[in-house]
Amino acid sequence: MHVFRTTGAGGPEVLSYEERAELTPGPSELLVRVRATAINRADLLQLRGGYAPPPDAPPDIPGLEYAGEVLAVGPRVRRFRPGDRVMGLVGGGAWAEQLTTHEREAIPMPEAMSFTDAAALPEVYLTAFDALVLQGGMRPGETVLVHAVASGVGSAAALLCRATGVRVVGTGRNAKKLERAREWGVEHTVLVEGPPPRFADAVREATGGRGAELALELVGGDYLSETLEALSPQGRVMVVGLVAGHRTQVNLSTLLVKRLRVTGTVLRSRPLEEKIALAQAAERHLLPLFRSGALRPVIDAVLPMQELRQALTRMASNETVGKIVLAWEQAHS
Amino acid sequence: MHVFRTTGAGGPEVLSYEERAELTPGPSELLVRVRATAINRADLLQLRGGYAPPPDAPPDIPGLEYAGEVLAVGPRVRRFRPGDRVMGLVGGGAWAEQLTTHEREAIPMPEAMSFTDAAALPEVYLTAFDALVLQGGMRPGETVLVHAVASGVGSAAALLCRATGVRVVGTGRNAKKLERAREWGVEHTVLVEGPPPRFADAVREATGGRGAELALELVGGDYLSETLEALSPQGRVMVVGLVAGHRTQVNLSTLLVKRLRVTGTVLRSRPLEEKIALAQAAERHLLPLFRSGALRPVIDAVLPMQELRQALTRMASNETVGKIVLAWEQAHS
Repeated sequence: MHVFRTTGAGGPEVLSYEERAELTPGPSELLVRVRATAINRADLLQLRGGYAPPPDAPPDIPGLEYAGEVLAVGPRVRRFRPGDRVMGLVGGGAWAEQLTTHEREAIPMPEAMSFTDAAALPEVYLTAFDALVLQGGMRPGETVLVHAVASGVGSAAALLCRATGVRVVGTGRNAKKLERAREWGVEHTVLVEGPPPRFADAVREATGGRGAELALELVGGDYLSETLEALSPQGRVMVVGLVAGHRTQVNLSTLLVKRLRVTGTVLRSRPLEEKIALAQAAERHLLPLFRSGALRPVIDAVLPMQELRQALTRMASNETVGKIVLAWEQAHS
Repeated sequence: MHVFRTTGAGGPEVLSYEERAELTPGPSELLVRVRATAINRADLLQLRGGYAPPPDAPPDIPGLEYAGEVLAVGPRVRRFRPGDRVMGLVGGGAWAEQLTTHEREAIPMPEAMSFTDAAALPEVYLTAFDALVLQGGMRPGETVLVHAVASGVGSAAALLCRATGVRVVGTGRNAKKLERAREWGVEHTVLVEGPPPRFADAVREATGGRGAELALELVGGDYLSETLEALSPQGRVMVVGLVAGHRTQVNLSTLLVKRLRVTGTVLRSRPLEEKIALAQAAERHLLPLFRSGALRPVIDAVLPMQELRQALTRMASNETVGKIVLAWEQAHS
C-alpha cells in the first residue's frame, strides 16, 4: 500500500510518497481501505514538529480522518463486516491507502453519502459536538459565539447550532468568506479587524445586551480576553484552537463577576476509552442528522491524493472555506 | 436596634455605630437577633466602594454572615420558630443587631455550638463547599491545591478535604502561619516567595509528578498561570479570590494540552434560588460534619462588636489565621 510519510520537520515538502507493507488488524480492529481523507491545521503543526502523534499512532504517517471500506476484521469484531463503509477519526495514519482502527471508534457512513463527503465530517463535527454539546452543555435557545465561522470547525459548529435550536454569532477576518456563513444559518456575522480584535460590543448588541452563553474559541491569542467580555453571566468558553497565539492577558475580575468557565480541550491525546465514548456519542447523536441532511459537509475542494502537498499549501493560505478533501484514485487502490 | 453603617468610601473609619428602626420579616422570612457575626476580605473591598451590595441587601449596612436566634417569623414560614438558633449567609446587613432572611437560606445551628463558633462557619465553609464540591467536582483520592491555606476559606477548604478523603497541598507566604496548617490535616505546605510566585514544582513533587487535580485560587494575579502549571491533566481551578490582582498572563497552550478548566465564582450576586439551593445543600452535606466535629471553626479571635473597626484593621494586616468573629454583648441585645 502507499502512504505519505514525513521525512523531517518543515512544510508540505517533507512529505514523501512511499510504499509500505500491508496492515493487519488487531483482535478488535478493522482494516480499512481509505477512499478519502481530509487535512487539518493540526497537520501543518505536526509537519513542523510541533504536535507529536500519540504513542498508538504511526509516528511518521499523518492524517486524522478518513472514509473508506472495511477490508478485513479482527476475530473479536462484532459491529462491522468486510465491505461495510465507515468513517472516523484516528490519532494518525489516515494519509495512507490502509489504516487500522478499533471497531468502536469507527462510525458507519450514511447510506447515500460519497466517500469524499464522508471524509469531510469526522474532525470538524466531532470537535464541534464534543466542545459545544458534551463539554459546553449547549442548550436550545442559547446564543453561541463561533470564531472563524468560515473555517472547517466553524462551519460545522454553525450547522450544528442551526440544527439544534441555537443562535450563532460568527466572526471572521474576511468579508467574502463571512458572507458564506449565511448558508449555514448564521444570522449575525462580525468582521473582526485590529489588533486588538474587537467584537464584544457587536455580540452584546446581537443578544439584547446579554452576551453569548457559550463561545467556541478557535483563534486564541488576544481573542480570549475579548471573548470573556462578549459572554453572558455564567457563560462558557471552549478553547479549541490557538491560531493567533498562546500567551494572552486575561481579566480575572470579569471571570469572577460573571462566573465564567474557560475550558481547554484537544481530541487526539485522549485515551482510547474517551475516543470510543466520543465516537459512540457521535454515532448516536450526529449520524441521524447526517442522514437527514441537517448536518452536511462544507467542502472547499476535493483533490486527488497525489496533490496532498498543494492542498496543505492552500489550507495554510487562509483562503479556504470549509474542508479540503483528498481522494485516492481507484487505480491506486 | 443598633447597626454599623457606612458613611462614605474608605477604610474601617467610615463605619458609624447608629440606631435604626426594628425590622419586620416578610411572609417567608425570619427576623433574627444577631448574636455574632464575622468579617471577610470582601468587606474591606465594599468599604472602599469596590464591591456594591446586591439590590436586595441593605445598601449601607455591610456584614455577610451571622449566628443568632429567631425573634419572629413571617406567616408562611414552616421551618423555624421563635427561639430557634440559626446561622447563615446574607447579601449584607449582618453588622446589625437584627436582620431578616428567607427561611430557606437559614441553616439550623449545631445543638451544642456557641454563637461565636457558628458565626465563623457560613462564609468560609459554603464558599469552599460550593467551589470544591458543587462546582469543582472534588472526589475522594484527589489532591487539591489550596492557596492561602491559613486564611479563613483556606483553612475551611483544608478541613473539608481532610473530612472527605482528599489530600491537600497548601501554600502561603508566612512560614509561621503555614505551620498551623498541620492542625487541619495539610500534609504538604509550600512557602511561596517571589514575585513571580513559584510552587508548581513543589506541587508536582508532592503528587508523584502528576500535579493536583483541583485548585482553590484565593490569590489570583500571577498565581493563576503558575497554578495551571501545577495541575494534572483535566485539572480544574476554581477562582474565588483576587487579592494579588486582576490582570494576568495565561499560557493557553497549557490549558489546551492538559484540557484544564478555569471557573470564576462569587456567591453574593447570585439570585435567591441559587442562594437557597446552596444553603440547602450545605444543610444536607455540611451540617452533619459540623455536628460530628469533622468540620470546625478556625478562629483567630473573638472580639466585642464595638471593636469592629479594629478587627477590620487586624484582618487587613494579613497576620490572622482563620476568622475574626464579633459578638454582640448581652447588654446591647
